Amino acid sequence: MHYILKDENPVYYEVGFSCDNELLIVAGDERVFITDPRYTTEAKEAITNAEVIEARDIYKAAREWIKRLGIKKLFYDPNDLRCSDLEQLRKSGAALRPKRNISWQKRLIKSEEEIAKIAQSVKLNAEAFCEFATFLQKSAGKSERELHFEATAFLSRKGRYDLSFDPIFAINENAAKPHALPTDKALQPGDLVLFDAGIKYERYCSDRTRTAFFGERMSFDKEQRFANPKIQRAYDTVRKAQEAAIAAARSGMKACELDKVARDIIEKSEFAGTFVHSLGHGVGLDIHEMPFINSRNQQILEDGMVFTIEPGIYIPGEFGIRIEDMVVLRNGRAEVF
Amino acid sequence: MHYILKDENPVYYEVGFSCDNELLIVAGDERVFITDPRYTTEAKEAITNAEVIEARDIYKAAREWIKRLGIKKLFYDPNDLRCSDLEQLRKSGAALRPKRNISWQKRLIKSEEEIAKIAQSVKLNAEAFCEFATFLQKSAGKSERELHFEATAFLSRKGRYDLSFDPIFAINENAAKPHALPTDKALQPGDLVLFDAGIKYERYCSDRTRTAFFGERMSFDKEQRFANPKIQRAYDTVRKAQEAAIAAARSGMKACELDKVARDIIEKSEFAGTFVHSLGHGVGLDIHEMPFINSRNQQILEDGMVFTIEPGIYIPGEFGIRIEDMVVLRNGRAEVF
Repeated sequence: MHYILKDENPVYYEVGFSCDNELLIVAGDERVFITDPRYTTEAKEAITNAEVIEARDIYKAAREWIKRLGIKKLFYDPNDLRCSDLEQLRKSGAALRPKRNISWQKRLIKSEEEIAKIAQSVKLNAEAFCEFATFLQKSAGKSERELHFEATAFLSRKGRYDLSFDPIFAINENAAKPHALPTDKALQPGDLVLFDAGIKYERYCSDRTRTAFFGERMSFDKEQRFANPKIQRAYDTVRKAQEAAIAAARSGMKACELDKVARDIIEKSEFAGTFVHSLGHGVGLDIHEMPFINSRNQQILEDGMVFTIEPGIYIPGEFGIRIEDMVVLRNGRAEVF
Repeated sequence: MHYILKDENPVYYEVGFSCDNELLIVAGDERVFITDPRYTTEAKEAITNAEVIEARDIYKAAREWIKRLGIKKLFYDPNDLRCSDLEQLRKSGAALRPKRNISWQKRLIKSEEEIAKIAQSVKLNAEAFCEFATFLQKSAGKSERELHFEATAFLSRKGRYDLSFDPIFAINENAAKPHALPTDKALQPGDLVLFDAGIKYERYCSDRTRTAFFGERMSFDKEQRFANPKIQRAYDTVRKAQEAAIAAARSGMKACELDKVARDIIEKSEFAGTFVHSLGHGVGLDIHEMPFINSRNQQILEDGMVFTIEPGIYIPGEFGIRIEDMVVLRNGRAEVF
């Protein structure tokens, strides 16, 4: 199968380099990386498994190379290319055929090298959670917005690491929105705090969520004591669901079967109907990639897959709870990073 | 002309609201905003000039509405839609026709309300430049990476405002790359500092660049004294080119004519050939939008257009200089914000 890629992570995965104006043609053993003069020096230094072509018009160069390589049928991912990209590739003479998830399929099983990078990403991220918790202990009265910003300083080590995504820092009822944006709400002793964040290490993402009871001795440990008994029951239910899913995960199982393990625990509790999203998602170069762990996905889980396990309970107007860890399937079972 | 939009800024411009999963159909006076259940509450509160439709599958809903509205021909911007978006809209029965820059064309002339928001964005950004300069005075020894991060704190007021783009903070020869990424290089007295940054105020972007001589009394004023005479000559040339372009800008002029005013000054100096990018770009909801001020664009400039004027001189391995301000054309001339 011959194919063309454009987005940075798909291209990086193939040739170990990417930039914001590039096309990669893969035709059997032949790979052609096309970029403009701003990036060719770095591309030539970094790329050893593809020919690096400099072109002011990368689409024109791609059409020429498609002809030169004698490609008759070229696949592209319709989520990767914009309509304008496709328009510009049409006159190459090859038949352009859509095929979804070309790169995600290739990246589904992680190598040991990738797993090591992900492990380091998770470790640095967990350290930042600890440091941020210590900072939070003295932060009563500060707003979600300010604490959201301070969190980015801890996570990135003041800019040394990129973030995987815009972190979520939400207090009490704001945590009931799974994608809460920070507000001017101020942190007060006794509040519930939900913190969902991740960094990138050598481009590999991490992703973690903790929900905590705020006070001068707060931490992001999984062991939490809330003053409100309903919150405590919800927290214990989410924790039970999360730990059950981690223990139950097996290579050979369907993604939807794993989702069901956690979902059943919440559905059978007093909090039925409050777990409004899927159990998890793959993590790698993208923060959300395959496998998707939800109630519909029939995909078989396999050794080497890396994904999150993150059940939640959301009571609009009251509170939200989520606990998220990343796991890798190894020797048939889930190992928590 | 009936058309469909998907990206956030095009949709926001039409209905004053946007989110990350939406389609907007515009058919004469009828507008249909389609989103999923996560966003419908906020959408209904914010949108007064469109029908808000909740749908788990926004494409299916769009196909139904295209039929219901009797649309025979529907335009889309090929830079706005991904191939997968278009695939999903095909079965609506309407002929889908590409048309570039649908939204940018509409947004080319700014209203007084938009100009007021941009003015506030520029003002807050300029204040942050001042505050950051004061911080820099005591920052000898800190790295580009750390100072790049500190800059984001000043610019965003610790997260209160979003940034228009990832700022550029570059020292000496790193400033010779127009899109420099921060390194571990430490700031030393006598260094040249290039700082290019902007924030968003009510979603409207600002964009500003200053180049400065670093020391304990540094500032980002345009008046700068460099110890190195070649740098001073280059700086004076860039400043002359920038001020000449601001003075020469007229409504009714072509974009390429304005570019030529600045470019000629640099080309006639000892620094010929070192101004390697275009003179400027439009700024609004997008940080780069129409009009593009370059050597090829025949577009006529008009009152109400907002754009940057930012000539530069780049000597690889030595230094880079750029001075950038934003202007609006009013009463036929350029007013600097």
